[in-house]
Amino acid sequence: MKIGVWLVGARGSVATTVVAGAAALRAGLAAPVGCVTAGTDFARAGLPPLDALVFGGHDISSTPLPKRAEELTRAGVIPSPLADLVRHELETADAEIRPGITDAVPREGQTQAALAQALIDDITDFRDRLGLARVVVIHVASTEPPVAPAPAHRNLETLTEALETPGAAVLPPSSLYAYAALSAGCAYIDFTPSTGAWLPALDELANARAVPYAGRDAKTGETLVKTALAPMFAARALAVRSWSGTNLLGGGDGATLADPAAGESKKISKERALPAILGHAVEGQTHIDHVAHLGDWKTAWDHITFEGFLGVRMSMQFTWQGCDSALAAPLVLDLARLIARAHERGRAGAVEELGFFFKDPLATDEHRVQVQYDLLRAWAGNLA
Amino acid sequence: MKIGVWLVGARGSVATTVVAGAAALRAGLAAPVGCVTAGTDFARAGLPPLDALVFGGHDISSTPLPKRAEELTRAGVIPSPLADLVRHELETADAEIRPGITDAVPREGQTQAALAQALIDDITDFRDRLGLARVVVIHVASTEPPVAPAPAHRNLETLTEALETPGAAVLPPSSLYAYAALSAGCAYIDFTPSTGAWLPALDELANARAVPYAGRDAKTGETLVKTALAPMFAARALAVRSWSGTNLLGGGDGATLADPAAGESKKISKERALPAILGHAVEGQTHIDHVAHLGDWKTAWDHITFEGFLGVRMSMQFTWQGCDSALAAPLVLDLARLIARAHERGRAGAVEELGFFFKDPLATDEHRVQVQYDLLRAWAGNLA
Amino acid sequence: MKIGVWLVGARGSVATTVVAGAAALRAGLAAPVGCVTAGTDFARAGLPPLDALVFGGHDISSTPLPKRAEELTRAGVIPSPLADLVRHELETADAEIRPGITDAVPREGQTQAALAQALIDDITDFRDRLGLARVVVIHVASTEPPVAPAPAHRNLETLTEALETPGAAVLPPSSLYAYAALSAGCAYIDFTPSTGAWLPALDELANARAVPYAGRDAKTGETLVKTALAPMFAARALAVRSWSGTNLLGGGDGATLADPAAGESKKISKERALPAILGHAVEGQTHIDHVAHLGDWKTAWDHITFEGFLGVRMSMQFTWQGCDSALAAPLVLDLARLIARAHERGRAGAVEELGFFFKDPLATDEHRVQVQYDLLRAWAGNLA
Amino acid sequence: MKIGVWLVGARGSVATTVVAGAAALRAGLAAPVGCVTAGTDFARAGLPPLDALVFGGHDISSTPLPKRAEELTRAGVIPSPLADLVRHELETADAEIRPGITDAVPREGQTQAALAQALIDDITDFRDRLGLARVVVIHVASTEPPVAPAPAHRNLETLTEALETPGAAVLPPSSLYAYAALSAGCAYIDFTPSTGAWLPALDELANARAVPYAGRDAKTGETLVKTALAPMFAARALAVRSWSGTNLLGGGDGATLADPAAGESKKISKERALPAILGHAVEGQTHIDHVAHLGDWKTAWDHITFEGFLGVRMSMQFTWQGCDSALAAPLVLDLARLIARAHERGRAGAVEELGFFFKDPLATDEHRVQVQYDLLRAWAGNLA
Repeated sequence: MKIGVWLVGARGSVATTVVAGAAALRAGLAAPVGCVTAGTDFARAGLPPLDALVFGGHDISSTPLPKRAEELTRAGVIPSPLADLVRHELETADAEIRPGITDAVPREGQTQAALAQALIDDITDFRDRLGLARVVVIHVASTEPPVAPAPAHRNLETLTEALETPGAAVLPPSSLYAYAALSAGCAYIDFTPSTGAWLPALDELANARAVPYAGRDAKTGETLVKTALAPMFAARALAVRSWSGTNLLGGGDGATLADPAAGESKKISKERALPAILGHAVEGQTHIDHVAHLGDWKTAWDHITFEGFLGVRMSMQFTWQGCDSALAAPLVLDLARLIARAHERGRAGAVEELGFFFKDPLATDEHRVQVQYDLLRAWAGNLA
Repeated sequence: MKIGVWLVGARGSVATTVVAGAAALRAGLAAPVGCVTAGTDFARAGLPPLDALVFGGHDISSTPLPKRAEELTRAGVIPSPLADLVRHELETADAEIRPGITDAVPREGQTQAALAQALIDDITDFRDRLGLARVVVIHVASTEPPVAPAPAHRNLETLTEALETPGAAVLPPSSLYAYAALSAGCAYIDFTPSTGAWLPALDELANARAVPYAGRDAKTGETLVKTALAPMFAARALAVRSWSGTNLLGGGDGATLADPAAGESKKISKERALPAILGHAVEGQTHIDHVAHLGDWKTAWDHITFEGFLGVRMSMQFTWQGCDSALAAPLVLDLARLIARAHERGRAGAVEELGFFFKDPLATDEHRVQVQYDLLRAWAGNLA
Repeated sequence: MKIGVWLVGARGSVATTVVAGAAALRAGLAAPVGCVTAGTDFARAGLPPLDALVFGGHDISSTPLPKRAEELTRAGVIPSPLADLVRHELETADAEIRPGITDAVPREGQTQAALAQALIDDITDFRDRLGLARVVVIHVASTEPPVAPAPAHRNLETLTEALETPGAAVLPPSSLYAYAALSAGCAYIDFTPSTGAWLPALDELANARAVPYAGRDAKTGETLVKTALAPMFAARALAVRSWSGTNLLGGGDGATLADPAAGESKKISKERALPAILGHAVEGQTHIDHVAHLGDWKTAWDHITFEGFLGVRMSMQFTWQGCDSALAAPLVLDLARLIARAHERGRAGAVEELGFFFKDPLATDEHRVQVQYDLLRAWAGNLA
Repeated sequence: MKIGVWLVGARGSVATTVVAGAAALRAGLAAPVGCVTAGTDFARAGLPPLDALVFGGHDISSTPLPKRAEELTRAGVIPSPLADLVRHELETADAEIRPGITDAVPREGQTQAALAQALIDDITDFRDRLGLARVVVIHVASTEPPVAPAPAHRNLETLTEALETPGAAVLPPSSLYAYAALSAGCAYIDFTPSTGAWLPALDELANARAVPYAGRDAKTGETLVKTALAPMFAARALAVRSWSGTNLLGGGDGATLADPAAGESKKISKERALPAILGHAVEGQTHIDHVAHLGDWKTAWDHITFEGFLGVRMSMQFTWQGCDSALAAPLVLDLARLIARAHERGRAGAVEELGFFFKDPLATDEHRVQVQYDLLRAWAGNLA
């Protein structure tokens, strides 16, 4: 029984690392480091094995996956000579990549419904042609700016109507992909801070189609550490007074986020956890800078001031130096396995138990990483 | 109903901050920052209020507490003019301090049993004279070197016999204090890495006298952060490969720990958490340096290397800059309140639920700070 | 023979620390730590002794210096009980403070020339009344936004004319103060990144009046370190590829610089050194954040990526944690002594040999701190 | 006219990077990043071009250079596919490597003079056979423990005599190599902290043979930064109170230095600069830890506390993350070119003008990196 993993942004760094990495793990060429669901806590959850995963997706780039894998080898993300060893699997996945939408604004006379239908057709063709039990759609494309609330987003009826209006751009691209995925009866994951499925109308759609979805914005670095440290201060009743962060990002992600509009989505997402964990606002800014020389790497520096007993001022700082795609890719595999199983077990709508993976978890205010893990593990136990 | 808090090392920086701080909190001169048990999770646990605490203790120094408080004001630990405002309380506590033992080795002809009896008499006199419902003994004196296992430590009978041997030094000072405390029917806390109650014979004594004890080595800085971060790596299946730490300590604590023998106790205690949390050994050393210019402050730098997906190498580092006495003092108050309540409720022997407070928690291998907190909170719920 | 030091912003944190510190040094209550000119390299330069300095100035605040000194004592900038010991000197200086201009825009019918004349009168009254040999004016007030070039700034003639136009705001406050100082025949120092004397017309005025001036923006932290480290990379032919900086500032300075317009002046000043030293542009941003909880302290984190042999990528980072007023105040004393002596020796116009003290040194492109020091020392030798 | 570069430790990481890098530079495959003498300041010094350098050396390892280069490619030190492109040059150099001495202790009946003669023969054979104008010997082998002073080291006469004593181990290996090099009329460089030429008898030998030598212990990381920062504190009259350092080293160097005896040599060398620059001792320790997971990389963390005006305490810290071989290799090329030219121009004995390159520069107390660079540049000017 095969499971499809349909990646929106299928030729990006994260997706390329996912496909190459899954092949490496299957071939025993690498250990499942960074794969949460490879742990014993998930052994009896009935998750589909990596062998069962088949990859495809949408992308607007036409650079083939083997070439992208070579680039990532030069960048130190994929170890040499892995890209060569899994070349066949990269080619197979590449053959299942279809052109994505470059612009969610329909041409004159066209409707967004028609744009969505083309996406739906790509996904269902993938599922039918390869005889897949089900398909999980995971959005790993570039971050979009935040979207202004619109009446059309409020419920499924108004949305459906609005999508039929020629020339109207009701949904941003990420939400159009989410709409297509849910309409096609696929589970959906928002791996980025883009709007995606995070609209009342799409929640209604997910429930109507009885498919689960989760998100958003995978936590892989600064925020992951934040959600490990902030609960420590809270448990010890130490009064955090400021928390400042500077994120230096290279690569395409850095370039995208250097755009203030897209960066805003990321900042909103990044600033969610602290007040939720500490119970109060904390002064301090979060910067996201593009530093091209860092390549696929990112460096985050966080500086925290806090008060202890009798008001004594203390401070803490940390620097996180990680490889973005290597941190993200195993989580994509984890999420694919988990939500595919949830779908199989009949779960519909937002899956808050997957909050462990996200900066801005849907349908929950729990941000403490250890508590999130305990919730995830308990849920996985129930999937058995 | 009054509760005695008998501090071994009663004129040290921690003890002075405890007495001044408790007075400040009672008088509403400071908020209970850093006091875990001031949180709502402990509101219904029936803990004795701060008002109920009465301080005394042993020390080999004769510098009175008001003078020590002035020194700590100059050092920035106690905010000006607090020491003046709580002078009366400092004097009251100082009047209850008795000379400690400078050397646990009895003079010729003398026995350790006799040394212990003098300590017991001091504590029972304090309890009886002030009409205290019970007394908690907390060891906050200088760290001792590790102690070699000895047959006399194996059970209470052999220990009792050995203590009666003239001239024999069966127990190190911290254990002699623990013996005295438990013998006097008092709950006991090992706040330092010294041996204290951590001997089979003393565990037997605690159970025989139906008193609880807990320890050891309060976690207030580097190890606290370690036990918040290491579980994050574990939950994310990131493979920690090295963890190196350098601790720069000023003040008396730094000078004591610069002695390799005493420093060894601290290092053993500090290196307990990582293998327990990660499930495997990790390369890397832990240094403890004395830097007198830091005064009462300590700085810890930790550097961590880890592998992610496909073996990609990443790293993290943090710097913690804290004031030792200000971090420790509120925990002393927390532990006094919690173990006094446990004693009242009939708990005897090692209290593993207090592991949240310690680097080397007795009777448990759980080091993850969030899990420790959840265990503590649940236990406090049962104390109600 | 007395020398006047007229501080613009005379009741600010820097000025208060200057006055208290000078008094402490004269009374032997503190060692001249941070005072460059106290070193043997300057012993024979004929600089006026600290005893010769008499303080006064302009400010728009009316909080007296003794009260400001108390605030700085609570903040940990001035050690207790120094403020009490030098109370008399603080009062004496406070009595010589005159109201500054809150707004350089003249009221209807009024001219900037008239505003300037009032400032000139204050300074000359100070000089005449106290029989001072000369007066040095040092601008230590809040940073202003950058000023757009204007025809009136081009030469002294057009400026003089423009200043006589009723209602016209030709000069920003800092430049009006500089104009007044130079017109009064006083040496002038731009201690901040504000425009100050940095206009062709004012340079002409300085030369016409035969007075020296220097600036601008004292380097006391991040930039000081930058100008020590960047030459190391250059000398070693290591290719710096990015240099990112985040500055966390508390206090009034932080609040002022959190305003994007004023912050812009500071950023321009901060970003001057790197391209000058390295000989090429370097990617990376400089952030200035206001973190009120830091009080008078500032923390800078800089992250540098560089390439070594065969293109290997390496990185360096540093964190600087300093007290702004304590870093600035001794430099004010140094500059007062040095420029007073230069004035005495007949130096007129921009004094590039003082570049050692500034982020954006006038009339020179030399930013390497060691080279600047060697130039300063050589110049001091010639002042003898 | 060809110049020989004879590397002691010719199959180590540094030497391999030197040979591969020189070939890459000659072929235009890489820019001379990290090569000090490639700068314009050295253009007219008459230095031998890279084309003129021919490599050979001693080593106790038999792993050929092409294989070592592959290992360094996997480690990220030599970029792929450079090792393949310069395979011929690696093989050529490898053919000129002769077995080194594994132990400087002569077998029974043998003398160190005989051991030295074998080394001399290797070097002169290399020079004669390849028709080299001169040979520079550079010691880049593992660090040795410090050597106790001995009467035989005092002058050349006693040394010569002692070397002839059968079975006597008068010199450590590094000094035996230095003795051989100088005896063969070759310039000599101590690139490590080992004793090498740093003995009065060997200085006499260098002068007698009219050859120059320099050392010791190339400064490539922590100490390089120290000697850039410490002068900044000194120039600003800021009082450095403590300087603590932790060095995490992977690779063979880390393993060698983890041995306390060898580590001692490195520490002595590392601790030379601070007191010389600051003019007073500073508290703080320097740790050298082996962290195998770091591979060829090293991380240094330094923490500095200092006092400013009125005794205010401040701090600074930095982290340096470098690739050891990539930092060292270009300096080997620089030193080879510079000392070959000095030899050509008749310079004999210790060359203190090369102090810029070393942690523990011979024959000078100048450690400030900028001043060292200025001295080097001036000297290079005189070589023209």
